[in-house]
Amino acid sequence: MKPTDVQNIRISDSFVLTRVGVTGVKKPMSVHRPKGAVTVIANIDAFVDLPQTLKGSHMSRNIEIINEAMVQEPVKSLEAMCLKLAHTLLKRHDYATRSEVMLTADYFLERRTPSGRPTLENYKIMAKALCDKAQNVYKKMIGVEVIGMTACPCAQVTARNIMNERDNIEVPDNVPFITHNQRNIVSIMIEVPENAEIEADDLIDIAESSVSSPTYGTLKRGDEAAVVINAHSNPKFVEDVVRDALMRIRDKYSYLPDDALVTVRSTAEESIHKHCAMAERSTTIGKLKEGENFKPLPNTCA
Amino acid sequence: MKPTDVQNIRISDSFVLTRVGVTGVKKPMSVHRPKGAVTVIANIDAFVDLPQTLKGSHMSRNIEIINEAMVQEPVKSLEAMCLKLAHTLLKRHDYATRSEVMLTADYFLERRTPSGRPTLENYKIMAKALCDKAQNVYKKMIGVEVIGMTACPCAQVTARNIMNERDNIEVPDNVPFITHNQRNIVSIMIEVPENAEIEADDLIDIAESSVSSPTYGTLKRGDEAAVVINAHSNPKFVEDVVRDALMRIRDKYSYLPDDALVTVRSTAEESIHKHCAMAERSTTIGKLKEGENFKPLPNTCA
Amino acid sequence: MKPTDVQNIRISDSFVLTRVGVTGVKKPMSVHRPKGAVTVIANIDAFVDLPQTLKGSHMSRNIEIINEAMVQEPVKSLEAMCLKLAHTLLKRHDYATRSEVMLTADYFLERRTPSGRPTLENYKIMAKALCDKAQNVYKKMIGVEVIGMTACPCAQVTARNIMNERDNIEVPDNVPFITHNQRNIVSIMIEVPENAEIEADDLIDIAESSVSSPTYGTLKRGDEAAVVINAHSNPKFVEDVVRDALMRIRDKYSYLPDDALVTVRSTAEESIHKHCAMAERSTTIGKLKEGENFKPLPNTCA
Amino acid sequence: MKPTDVQNIRISDSFVLTRVGVTGVKKPMSVHRPKGAVTVIANIDAFVDLPQTLKGSHMSRNIEIINEAMVQEPVKSLEAMCLKLAHTLLKRHDYATRSEVMLTADYFLERRTPSGRPTLENYKIMAKALCDKAQNVYKKMIGVEVIGMTACPCAQVTARNIMNERDNIEVPDNVPFITHNQRNIVSIMIEVPENAEIEADDLIDIAESSVSSPTYGTLKRGDEAAVVINAHSNPKFVEDVVRDALMRIRDKYSYLPDDALVTVRSTAEESIHKHCAMAERSTTIGKLKEGENFKPLPNTCA
Repeated sequence: MKPTDVQNIRISDSFVLTRVGVTGVKKPMSVHRPKGAVTVIANIDAFVDLPQTLKGSHMSRNIEIINEAMVQEPVKSLEAMCLKLAHTLLKRHDYATRSEVMLTADYFLERRTPSGRPTLENYKIMAKALCDKAQNVYKKMIGVEVIGMTACPCAQVTARNIMNERDNIEVPDNVPFITHNQRNIVSIMIEVPENAEIEADDLIDIAESSVSSPTYGTLKRGDEAAVVINAHSNPKFVEDVVRDALMRIRDKYSYLPDDALVTVRSTAEESIHKHCAMAERSTTIGKLKEGENFKPLPNTCA
Repeated sequence: MKPTDVQNIRISDSFVLTRVGVTGVKKPMSVHRPKGAVTVIANIDAFVDLPQTLKGSHMSRNIEIINEAMVQEPVKSLEAMCLKLAHTLLKRHDYATRSEVMLTADYFLERRTPSGRPTLENYKIMAKALCDKAQNVYKKMIGVEVIGMTACPCAQVTARNIMNERDNIEVPDNVPFITHNQRNIVSIMIEVPENAEIEADDLIDIAESSVSSPTYGTLKRGDEAAVVINAHSNPKFVEDVVRDALMRIRDKYSYLPDDALVTVRSTAEESIHKHCAMAERSTTIGKLKEGENFKPLPNTCA
Repeated sequence: MKPTDVQNIRISDSFVLTRVGVTGVKKPMSVHRPKGAVTVIANIDAFVDLPQTLKGSHMSRNIEIINEAMVQEPVKSLEAMCLKLAHTLLKRHDYATRSEVMLTADYFLERRTPSGRPTLENYKIMAKALCDKAQNVYKKMIGVEVIGMTACPCAQVTARNIMNERDNIEVPDNVPFITHNQRNIVSIMIEVPENAEIEADDLIDIAESSVSSPTYGTLKRGDEAAVVINAHSNPKFVEDVVRDALMRIRDKYSYLPDDALVTVRSTAEESIHKHCAMAERSTTIGKLKEGENFKPLPNTCA
Repeated sequence: MKPTDVQNIRISDSFVLTRVGVTGVKKPMSVHRPKGAVTVIANIDAFVDLPQTLKGSHMSRNIEIINEAMVQEPVKSLEAMCLKLAHTLLKRHDYATRSEVMLTADYFLERRTPSGRPTLENYKIMAKALCDKAQNVYKKMIGVEVIGMTACPCAQVTARNIMNERDNIEVPDNVPFITHNQRNIVSIMIEVPENAEIEADDLIDIAESSVSSPTYGTLKRGDEAAVVINAHSNPKFVEDVVRDALMRIRDKYSYLPDDALVTVRSTAEESIHKHCAMAERSTTIGKLKEGENFKPLPNTCA
């Protein structure tokens, strides 16, 4: 009789593997939200490490663990569910010392346009968990990806100057001047320490407050102009978007432990270029608080 | 001895198939261009039809035919090469009555920024061929995909009016007003009849002339402002982009036969929305010439 | 006072546009299904045509119409909702003569593995509607995209022959032989005439019955082997997949009018090649019934 | 007179940014290869950090630096070019302390099928460089992404046992048994220390030697069967692929310094699942050599 548990074959003198598992597992999940449970379609990756003595990881266990989590719905939060999955991965793969779970899902919130019209806007929500027995690390993170709009502060000043000097055109300083503007993708990812709670909706608020203007699905004429005027009165580089979001994160989450991780990224799909502009900061809450005292910028073009 | 040519098995009373073949075949190819041969990385699909009496198509022939075409480089034009491939497909698959070949490739042209600085810009080039023995159709098409910039004419008028009425701000009419602007993807596809020649570079010129402004990789401060001023002096809906391109196509290619196919599409990756705006026209040169006499629009905001 | 309804500007002698509208609009929707309402995240495109006398289409109406449809949930079927959207588009854009709506969404069904274990599998559901006043056409279509597995009949025969002749290895005919197998993406799109009802779940059944084997998220050891044995006992070209699906469609939907449209496509992401193999048929129910009398193939390798 | 160099505005007490720059810059480049210069279409990202006292980074410099590099063609190697770009970024952005450059490009090599037929295969080539003044780090890396084929060792054993026990079918051990097989994407990334040279073509060889079988564009019947027989005689988990590549890397590059970084990943686009299986190791040459003495596995099914 031949062996059938090929993964369990003991091998000698091979290499440890850092991550072994499944990617792109799609499942609908019900998640508890401030206004009641909502269904999200989660896209999940789940890994453990593998010692050098074992030929293979039993990956069907990863899928079983994900399936079980779906039954106990609605889950309290996506990051709590990821951490629970990561813990269970370590239990079922008893040879493993590390586990990782990543999840992304489309997400929707009702917003109001400048004139107050309701509109349902789409976002991406992201969650992660990491367990590491050896280092006694059990982390979870929550994040969001938000599409907003940025208007460039630099071209705005230059265009105004050129038209002033070359064409002798003087536009009052209180009239926002033309510049290029574009879609800007802002992502925020933040560690949620034990006993702390961070609401994804708040991170979406922070991201939308940090661009030149939020964007909306439905904009009738007056609202469209209001968005344009707001964005041009509030021009931002990708650098400004990241720093403004960092400032808001530091202020709102200053109670978090110093070693809580934070990453903020802003990518402008430039309207004047075929490539993109990007700014990013990866740091901790402690670093944000210590020494780097941000004071909000005056209007750049003033 | 069992049969080994499974594809050649004669079956009875099954269904004709419209297209059978390969997709996503990547090959580097040398193409003759106005300024000398250039290498492109082509992504190719190649199909024939299949009669109801045959179990399978011999798809490895499609790959062999593509490989042979690569050896006879540099090819004169990508659409001529597609047509040659389509003819050869019909010859080698003697059971077939129809063949189709589609190709896309990244492509580059040297451009000048408004101040005259040279910059190498990236585009997509597309080619297609279709042979149909029964209908005696042997067509080839060439096309381009171009990233440009559009500034919205509607928000520009509304924003000016609102600031005028609400804030009593009067900006002279010769000063282009703020609006939202964004990446705009323009694609043009046109039939190249026998004995005619259409240069992809000319189609790129037409697409770039039809947006509010072309875009550039390298823009120092003065050039950046010039692009912004040009775009805002030339605001365009996706509808305007398509119509302006159609007008230029009709004027430049009026000598083509009336049944020559033309498709133009413009997609604005809206900066004020998370979704896109799109306009498209699929028609013939004859339709463009007959009755629909386009006169260029005056500046929309005047 | 300047005009503010820029889209409404009357222009002269321009070009008709075939499709003008929005793409990539994401909305959660509740849809009635056999086992109760489910939430899907729909990705929607919505277009109308534009006469040559009008400068622009009022695209915000497209979004409003989509928003209104969401409120009247749960919708009866996605294709019925698309048709309703298309009708409303024509009403609100009174200048339009044509409208089109396309929708895709992730979708899930509970399946049983060969040993009977329950597993939730993911699919894509697609719906379309087209209204054309001039031609008095009011069509709707429903479709699915299904990931399955195909095992190649050709390599199976050749490998068996080679090992037999070269290595003198004789394997009994009732033992399925090795071959290459791979992911196969099957899509079916079918017109749903007035008063007819077609259930997307049935189309998923047809697609899964037409590949060498369905695939499953959770497969413990015995189930994994069963899927492999089933697939190798049922080898299929992409051509076979399309024809088998066409046969099932003709038999199940023979009551549909002759002009009801059907498209079936199968794409094998080949494991032995870096490119894909593809087969497709676009036709009508009438064509499938008339003359092309399919008799199921005997096992190909016999 | 207003300031026009908005980026240069001195701000106080803001946040350092980790990475600021451009992404998705496409450029054709001529690269020196063993058999002569070849043209690749590079997709480039280029970043520097930004001190807390400066409002913005001058991103047009990043594009200028990339443009200049293109003129000095053919470049010796893509990773050397990335390092040169990273050095120049630090020079031109004199406020920066870190710079990063990443590049990917399609790449082609002539291969021989099992029967010796020539075939041009497509791969992806990747290069990276990182400069960090504060830590005195000046690193460059080269990598490849290769599509191959893996046959599952586990299902092969289980299917053989089931058919043996249930159906009393005995197939000789020297006949490779059926199993599922699929596309497998292998990526290797390795640090190239100063004065060392690592040839991307060798990394492609290593990746292709580590899957169950390489894959080919053109396979006539006998070659197709040979690939299938080879793959089934050499079944591999994603775990095996990564470990076999690591072993080959350790043996071939044992002369590299101990701290040279290595990452190997294998992703199987499973034919029996809709999700993927993945294994990965991130480590150093030193770790691979010390203590983890790999001995090649005997045939898994024996």
